Amino acid sequence: MASMTGQGRGVVGVLLDDADDWRRRLAPLLPDERIEVVAPAGAGSTAGAGSVADASSVDVLVVGNPDPAELARFPALRFVQSAWAGPDRLTGGVLPPGVAAARLVDDSLTDAMVEYVAAWVLALHRQLPVYRAQQAARQWTAHAQPLARERVVGLLGYGALGLPVTETLAGLGFRVVAWARRAREAPVEVVSGATGLDDLLRRADIVVNLLPLTPETRGILDADRLARLPHGASIVNCGRGAHVDVDALLAALDAGQLAHAVLDVFDDEPLPVDSPLWDHPGVTVTPHVAAASEPRLAARAVADNIVRHRSGHPVLNPL
Amino acid sequence: MASMTGQGRGVVGVLLDDADDWRRRLAPLLPDERIEVVAPAGAGSTAGAGSVADASSVDVLVVGNPDPAELARFPALRFVQSAWAGPDRLTGGVLPPGVAAARLVDDSLTDAMVEYVAAWVLALHRQLPVYRAQQAARQWTAHAQPLARERVVGLLGYGALGLPVTETLAGLGFRVVAWARRAREAPVEVVSGATGLDDLLRRADIVVNLLPLTPETRGILDADRLARLPHGASIVNCGRGAHVDVDALLAALDAGQLAHAVLDVFDDEPLPVDSPLWDHPGVTVTPHVAAASEPRLAARAVADNIVRHRSGHPVLNPL
Repeated sequence: MASMTGQGRGVVGVLLDDADDWRRRLAPLLPDERIEVVAPAGAGSTAGAGSVADASSVDVLVVGNPDPAELARFPALRFVQSAWAGPDRLTGGVLPPGVAAARLVDDSLTDAMVEYVAAWVLALHRQLPVYRAQQAARQWTAHAQPLARERVVGLLGYGALGLPVTETLAGLGFRVVAWARRAREAPVEVVSGATGLDDLLRRADIVVNLLPLTPETRGILDADRLARLPHGASIVNCGRGAHVDVDALLAALDAGQLAHAVLDVFDDEPLPVDSPLWDHPGVTVTPHVAAASEPRLAARAVADNIVRHRSGHPVLNPL
Repeated sequence: MASMTGQGRGVVGVLLDDADDWRRRLAPLLPDERIEVVAPAGAGSTAGAGSVADASSVDVLVVGNPDPAELARFPALRFVQSAWAGPDRLTGGVLPPGVAAARLVDDSLTDAMVEYVAAWVLALHRQLPVYRAQQAARQWTAHAQPLARERVVGLLGYGALGLPVTETLAGLGFRVVAWARRAREAPVEVVSGATGLDDLLRRADIVVNLLPLTPETRGILDADRLARLPHGASIVNCGRGAHVDVDALLAALDAGQLAHAVLDVFDDEPLPVDSPLWDHPGVTVTPHVAAASEPRLAARAVADNIVRHRSGHPVLNPL
């Protein structure tokens, strides 16, 4: 235990874009811990303001959604806490033996996702992209406007995020149909299986994707399934880029089959500057901001799980 | 009573842009009435598909927000039902003697306004104009994102529309401060008077205007009051164009004092093609669509009031 510090513990390393902010927010919540900013692999001496821990002393790591190969640098690692709700690169048995990991489930992340989805579902419902294009052409034309209760929102994913998203959309008056792993009693219509998904897609004016990325959900919104949507439907993707076949999506937009796509997640992030998504008139790009964990709001949930790990209690939301 | 028709009644004239649709929707609800499309003054023989009533036989008129001078063409006129929530050109004693008038208060109009305000408050809260500008520049930058519960929405107007708007915004998590004619017990903070208005403006991240246009509220959002808003605040105007000093608004946007203005109403509608509002990057223009009364949804409330008038019962929502 030569590399251990403090009360026989290792260092809590923070490997995140806004690591300094995380360290500052975590420090008062974990007064007994040594918390240090860890430079990403290859960052060398450009690590910035934080002190850079000796990798061999780090036994707890706070991360986003890193390449698992990054973790090999930390021989003493025992616990990885992601600040993301869906750190899919850490799933599927890729962690070194003896290393536990957890994702973040936090009210502030949930609230942020609910707000993003509500904002965009309302924006599509009220035809904001149409009126924006008209404004650019100085065109004053009102369009028929259904009420929310005349619109069907199809929600892919009905878990920890899907439930509160559903409540908010239903509270705004939308008719929500949710696709879940299995049918169940719920305040909204829940469908399941391949048949249920087809049924949802056939009826949805707006599809919201909140699924986790798994072998079963990868590529789920492909050309066939997009073609099932009603003419003029829109989609909001808050899941992962790999859920959507982007070529098929662009073809459906170009054909007028789809009216608009709001994309917050991409196969390759940041979205490459030469991507055709940037300037397609039917696409809105947001830079993975639907539910970013703000240290200010989420530090408590991260700290709580580190305390659980240290004290031998089961951590919450293990991967 | 020589000009009367049917059971001793006059004709119900419809003087609206979508008059044919109104007539088609009203007919089954008023089977004993003769309902005819009335051409606007000066429209001559270009009135389109509807039959044009003899103006002298019209004793009930369904209108939007017409110039009161238009009504002088109808000597038998007794009742004017507006399909607008705020037909301000008909208020202030401008109607001919003996002519009653009513505005439209209808759940569908209320719901539409609630949806428009919720859509734009969420859009401003989630920085949609910022991300739209970044997309045009192919720029991938995430910004700090407060939660709704960290934002104050200042609501000008706390009447038939303001109450449900408040409920929805509060349900989305926003802190709502409403300005009403007088302070009262309410589920949100309600302020009143000039001091209350100043207090609201000093704290509001987003101001939503739902006021009726009266001599007291005309020009209420002038340079002085806009300057009281926190740096970077935004406004949503769903009242009337004359509530806002547009020159002062543009100056505040240019100075960076305000971040964005969403305008659905204008002094002069349609907004003239040479207005500087069309292509100001800090302005969103929508063509008076926040709460348009759709015949499909609002015909029942219009018909009900005509039945009340005909049967000698007090009409609802008199002007």
